[in-house]
Amino acid sequence: MKIALAQLNYHVGNFESNTAKIIDHIHRAKQQQADLVVFAELCVCGYPSRDFLEFNEFIGLCEESAKKIAAECSDIACIIGLPTHNNKKIGKELNNSAYFIENGEVKAVVNKALLPNYDIFDEYRYFEPSTEFKCIDFKGHRIALTICEDLWNTLENPLYVTRPMDVLIGEKPDVMINIAASPFAYNHDEERIDILRDNAKRYNLPLLYVNHVGAQTELIFDGGSLVFDNQGGLIDELPYFEEAVTYYTLEDKAKIIPLQPATIQVVRQSNIEQIHHGLILGIRDYFYKSGFSKAILGLSGGIDSAVVCALAAEALGPQNVMAVLLPSRFSSDHSVNDAEDLVKNIGCMHEIIPIREVTEAFETALHPQFNNLPFNIAEENIQSRSRAVILMAMCNKFGYILLNTSNKSEAAVGYGTLYGDMCGGISVIGDVYKTQVFELARYINREREIIPENTIVKPPSAELRPNQKDTDSLPEYAILDPILTQYIEHRCSSGEIIRMGFDEKTVRRVLRLVNIAEHKRYQTPPILRVSPKAFGMGRRMPIVGKYLS
Amino acid sequence: MKIALAQLNYHVGNFESNTAKIIDHIHRAKQQQADLVVFAELCVCGYPSRDFLEFNEFIGLCEESAKKIAAECSDIACIIGLPTHNNKKIGKELNNSAYFIENGEVKAVVNKALLPNYDIFDEYRYFEPSTEFKCIDFKGHRIALTICEDLWNTLENPLYVTRPMDVLIGEKPDVMINIAASPFAYNHDEERIDILRDNAKRYNLPLLYVNHVGAQTELIFDGGSLVFDNQGGLIDELPYFEEAVTYYTLEDKAKIIPLQPATIQVVRQSNIEQIHHGLILGIRDYFYKSGFSKAILGLSGGIDSAVVCALAAEALGPQNVMAVLLPSRFSSDHSVNDAEDLVKNIGCMHEIIPIREVTEAFETALHPQFNNLPFNIAEENIQSRSRAVILMAMCNKFGYILLNTSNKSEAAVGYGTLYGDMCGGISVIGDVYKTQVFELARYINREREIIPENTIVKPPSAELRPNQKDTDSLPEYAILDPILTQYIEHRCSSGEIIRMGFDEKTVRRVLRLVNIAEHKRYQTPPILRVSPKAFGMGRRMPIVGKYLS
Repeated sequence: MKIALAQLNYHVGNFESNTAKIIDHIHRAKQQQADLVVFAELCVCGYPSRDFLEFNEFIGLCEESAKKIAAECSDIACIIGLPTHNNKKIGKELNNSAYFIENGEVKAVVNKALLPNYDIFDEYRYFEPSTEFKCIDFKGHRIALTICEDLWNTLENPLYVTRPMDVLIGEKPDVMINIAASPFAYNHDEERIDILRDNAKRYNLPLLYVNHVGAQTELIFDGGSLVFDNQGGLIDELPYFEEAVTYYTLEDKAKIIPLQPATIQVVRQSNIEQIHHGLILGIRDYFYKSGFSKAILGLSGGIDSAVVCALAAEALGPQNVMAVLLPSRFSSDHSVNDAEDLVKNIGCMHEIIPIREVTEAFETALHPQFNNLPFNIAEENIQSRSRAVILMAMCNKFGYILLNTSNKSEAAVGYGTLYGDMCGGISVIGDVYKTQVFELARYINREREIIPENTIVKPPSAELRPNQKDTDSLPEYAILDPILTQYIEHRCSSGEIIRMGFDEKTVRRVLRLVNIAEHKRYQTPPILRVSPKAFGMGRRMPIVGKYLS
Repeated sequence: MKIALAQLNYHVGNFESNTAKIIDHIHRAKQQQADLVVFAELCVCGYPSRDFLEFNEFIGLCEESAKKIAAECSDIACIIGLPTHNNKKIGKELNNSAYFIENGEVKAVVNKALLPNYDIFDEYRYFEPSTEFKCIDFKGHRIALTICEDLWNTLENPLYVTRPMDVLIGEKPDVMINIAASPFAYNHDEERIDILRDNAKRYNLPLLYVNHVGAQTELIFDGGSLVFDNQGGLIDELPYFEEAVTYYTLEDKAKIIPLQPATIQVVRQSNIEQIHHGLILGIRDYFYKSGFSKAILGLSGGIDSAVVCALAAEALGPQNVMAVLLPSRFSSDHSVNDAEDLVKNIGCMHEIIPIREVTEAFETALHPQFNNLPFNIAEENIQSRSRAVILMAMCNKFGYILLNTSNKSEAAVGYGTLYGDMCGGISVIGDVYKTQVFELARYINREREIIPENTIVKPPSAELRPNQKDTDSLPEYAILDPILTQYIEHRCSSGEIIRMGFDEKTVRRVLRLVNIAEHKRYQTPPILRVSPKAFGMGRRMPIVGKYLS
């Protein structure tokens, strides 16, 4: 039997393009004499479709697409993922289903049993878990078909009370196929390989695994679909961050042979390399899927906006990136020079729009109220917000989308101005700590200097008052970032972090800053997720809570 | 047996104040010779504690509080709600539990079985459902204790595959107690009464039900705790939107007698009356629980900001409300006059800060880029955003919190300026349609004119260009609001709404506007929830989706 794995980039709710893409790949696989082509989980509607799933019309469109796809399946079978109505009269209204389609008809329906409902996942919001498991016979083979999380209930972490493969194995299948929607995080590729290898070994079966690729707003899917033999040997690893279609023959005795050179990574990509590729895909798909092509951002001369500018230029082409320098009376000469050097290196468009007159107009307007009260955060924020008004006006006039340039460290501790530098359509590096931003800059400069050396080496500053430095308000990033990582990613308590050797007062102050900044993060743009715990849909905190605040 | 029901206002994560309040009410109930005092679901930590629940330290603090509470339970028993570690080695890490405490010890632990995971609820994110059910014997009575949703799996809508009372009834209890965290929506009080009455009747048992009262950021809990006899007769209905403690004797043969005059509503509050009371509680708790006292808002002379100003003055006292008039070159005289009349009627503080010079400074700064391109939405938004900069500067200088004044109709169709009039710490009427805002204004004026008649009768306008009217861009609100209600609250599809008799082109246009405005709503403040489907945590939509857009 010849099997094709189609690792494709879908678009949530775009039935026209998703269906056309699936049908196109059925035709291509047929030309290659494949017997079966496997698409990803919920590929028909895209993942995550979120509360679109609560609309009957939306589910109807999924079923319509499935019919169109089935009509193309003559002399070839396919596996697609889609939501379907739960035909039991009890429980949630939908199932997260896989259709096995053969000869124009749905031959088998498999429903997902283990529904992730943590971090960014909300599957139990929509779907009823399956309790019935059956293999599918096709061309002399018996296929144990499961959906993503169904293979993730490990012995070490039994998050669910059932394990579908423990039932399916009783029917003596000779191959496992798993269709997935497994989003990117810089550590997730190895985790996936380990979990899936364990399954291949435990059940002594070859395993073919198909993931999504492409970004859906903040969620990036990295692809990296996998094929294992029945000993857990890695037979193939599909490319990351790009579409790919590969072919295999499945022989008797569980032997599985790739029909093209395998692309297994010998040296794994570093975290920063993965983050770099992920962010570029994230930017590109955000613009492409929302029908925009041109980005704008404020360029301060600092490292955050420089890195975002370089990433945007690579994602969209420098001709589609507008960098705006918005100097104030506190902007240093080196800031303007560094920003201009960057623009030259990248070759993007740029404008210089000084904000001094605007901020003075605000101060004049507010003089009767402010009287002679001392300059403080009010005047600092006026600068940041004036820049946002100008950038948004450029968006409104010329059709740009504003890129947010806040990093994860400052988003965490609230070191940013709401409606000022926290604005934007999408946050590019809001899941990248400041220390990682420096690494990203070095990676971007790996072949030639794109980000000026001076931008990398000078001490970070918001330049909202004379001689301001980030370290006036915050611990050194080399201290701050590890504390944040323990608190945010590893969900350690203050006591645990202090016991790791961090200064108690610093830890308590940092955790308090994180918790009281929740109201700011609530109103920020979606953040491209590259870590196992990003701000946004995967981290849901009370705003007017009192814990650690 | 004498039972006290304690309907109290807790604060998420504020263990100190929650524990003190619970202990205080144990002592009071003891003074009244009560045998048992019943508190609400998850009262120890507050509801919803959201991802605080993922921190071990947080769960530890819950257990510590429970110990302190237990130490006070001599000669009285109590029921409290708290998260506890799931002691089975499988499934989610926590249970949503109730402790039955007697003589300083936890005598019984009941875990919630039905975990709501829809709309604003995320309980399956944290909790493992219980599968074991046992009654509690106390002072010659056998109590069937359940937690909120455990009684909500109705015959007509079997959302779950189990029903805990069907098991418990086998042990022949003589009373049901249910502790709950059931948030306010204007239609929810009657729904609650119906569901709970059905339970009392079905199981032929009296039922005591204790709810939360008070707001936690966007979620308002309205109280309205209930007592039924075993025929489903309503014995008592606790007050709405305020704390209350009531006492009952439970006699043999399931007879239950209130020890104070019952407060059953003969004429139910109208939707608008409930919304009015809910919003005032929502504003008050947002400020009180976040440690602020003074609100600021921009007053346009229109009805939305007028209604918010009146609500804020009632919630916080007029002396704590600062209304700022921010006239531009397009503001009409009547706007300024109407706003000044309102301020006089309310007696709040006010300032007038014209924005003309500020907007001109922006236009001058942008002249090299904008050149002589015609005035359009870019310049309109500059006005709205300039106002936001001024209001936020006032916040930063004087410690106000900005109230957002957008209504649900404009939030739905994106008729607002991001980082402009969409700013604020909390959105007061973001879950109130424009047609309901008019009703609210009439209600506020029920005894005397607070909101000037002219503000109510003049055609709505954003006044961002000469002679602008809302109806230039949008259908009449009398058409728009019913379409929005069908789409948002009832989740009807376009086809269904058209079949109700609405104009097809209008329906398609409105639904498209709603879907393409998702990116704006993502960045707006939390919205006080008063309807069964509010924007925010209860409605989770893709941003770069393609459905109906």
